[in-house]
Amino acid sequence: MNLSDLAAKGATPAGFVLTLALRAADDAWLKPFARGLGEDAVLFGCPLLGGDTVSTPGPLVVSITAFGRVPKGQMVHRSGAKPGDRVVVTGTIGDAASGLDILRGGAVAAVLADDAAAREMLVGRYRLPQPRTALAGAVRDYAHAAMDVSDGLAGDLAKLCAASGVSAVIDAQSVPLSAAAATLLARGTIGIETIVSGGDDYEILCAIPENRFEAFAQAAARAGVTVASIGTVIAGPSVPKFLDARGREIVLQRLSYSHF
Amino acid sequence: MNLSDLAAKGATPAGFVLTLALRAADDAWLKPFARGLGEDAVLFGCPLLGGDTVSTPGPLVVSITAFGRVPKGQMVHRSGAKPGDRVVVTGTIGDAASGLDILRGGAVAAVLADDAAAREMLVGRYRLPQPRTALAGAVRDYAHAAMDVSDGLAGDLAKLCAASGVSAVIDAQSVPLSAAAATLLARGTIGIETIVSGGDDYEILCAIPENRFEAFAQAAARAGVTVASIGTVIAGPSVPKFLDARGREIVLQRLSYSHF
Repeated sequence: MNLSDLAAKGATPAGFVLTLALRAADDAWLKPFARGLGEDAVLFGCPLLGGDTVSTPGPLVVSITAFGRVPKGQMVHRSGAKPGDRVVVTGTIGDAASGLDILRGGAVAAVLADDAAAREMLVGRYRLPQPRTALAGAVRDYAHAAMDVSDGLAGDLAKLCAASGVSAVIDAQSVPLSAAAATLLARGTIGIETIVSGGDDYEILCAIPENRFEAFAQAAARAGVTVASIGTVIAGPSVPKFLDARGREIVLQRLSYSHF
Repeated sequence: MNLSDLAAKGATPAGFVLTLALRAADDAWLKPFARGLGEDAVLFGCPLLGGDTVSTPGPLVVSITAFGRVPKGQMVHRSGAKPGDRVVVTGTIGDAASGLDILRGGAVAAVLADDAAAREMLVGRYRLPQPRTALAGAVRDYAHAAMDVSDGLAGDLAKLCAASGVSAVIDAQSVPLSAAAATLLARGTIGIETIVSGGDDYEILCAIPENRFEAFAQAAARAGVTVASIGTVIAGPSVPKFLDARGREIVLQRLSYSHF
């Protein structure tokens, strides 16, 4: 999650601090956790810098703050989107929400009972997000504004638009889906609302000026990250609209997942 | 505590990250905590850089990691003490241990029942340690090795000596005491062991080469921090010795407070 956030700012990972509040019962958990964390620290060039470890009688607490580097003045904020920019997202949206549904034994699990590979992919997208670290340079070079999609595409787009003082119109059919999510949507197992408000995608959402979109897409391809243009930034303070295939607005009951 | 640690490295505060795991019941606590933290951030030039806030059903967790700056290659480590160096501490030792005893309704509270000012001073030393930030420059300029005294003078000195591959001989009578602690020691309310192993002093312990001690003491005076020479670094791997007024070794049952 931290690495995803850094990439969306156009930043290269520099290191992280870790807080652990551990119960005695967490001994068995600690070893594989430390191993996995150590592997990611090497893989993403983001070493452990410090932090604190304490004992607690209460639930385990794990907190990580990561630091990244950008050339001075080149950090990409949420606030730079301009009318006419393309709204772009990386990867696919909504997989993690379906993965969580599977873990909870919901409708998705039943529909995919015979497709272990699809279930595993969706659960993996929820459990182990893949940060788009490779895209940081392209974001820095081409995006007017960017953020990572962690709480749901609709809600995070609304935050980006609010920070930029703009709105957006999104073509819901352009939102990139995995084959599994497309199947679930087509069968009515999940709705478009679950996909665009489900959260935990850890993709990058950005606003790219129209005349630089082609160059951005090429840079993304070189970085090995798929990108999709899903709509357009427009003037005005209203909440971004999602339109269906017939151009009608999709009314969303909620924009994103709330942690509190 | 973080600021004390930075000062002992010869570092100037740069900023901190904060992790909070909050219960709903912590609402009333949060406001004065945030105010106090904000005041210290301004006072010590150490702004909040980021971190994370989550909800928890369990006990409140607060974790702070602070960052400081030192000129390249000038950070003061624990490992540089050399035989012949003076062992030096700032301020007074053992007050916080007596303050904790008062909060627990121990013997100190009874003996000081008529001395509210002394009780308040001792409890204050436990509750609100004053980091020796002003001494960072002198530590950087003069100390072979340094650390802050957080777990007890005896135990922390043993750590510094072990890191440096040396030992030390300490004149227990030279350990600087507040008037209140000296009175408690003279009356037998607390023993020298409580003073040198009690913890939570947040003073700076350092090894200063003999020929630079005078200049260090003058720099400390200019910084407004009292320093006391309490012994000498000697060769050898043994645990540092504390000697009484007649030169006999004081046998310590424990060197420091253990958090686990």
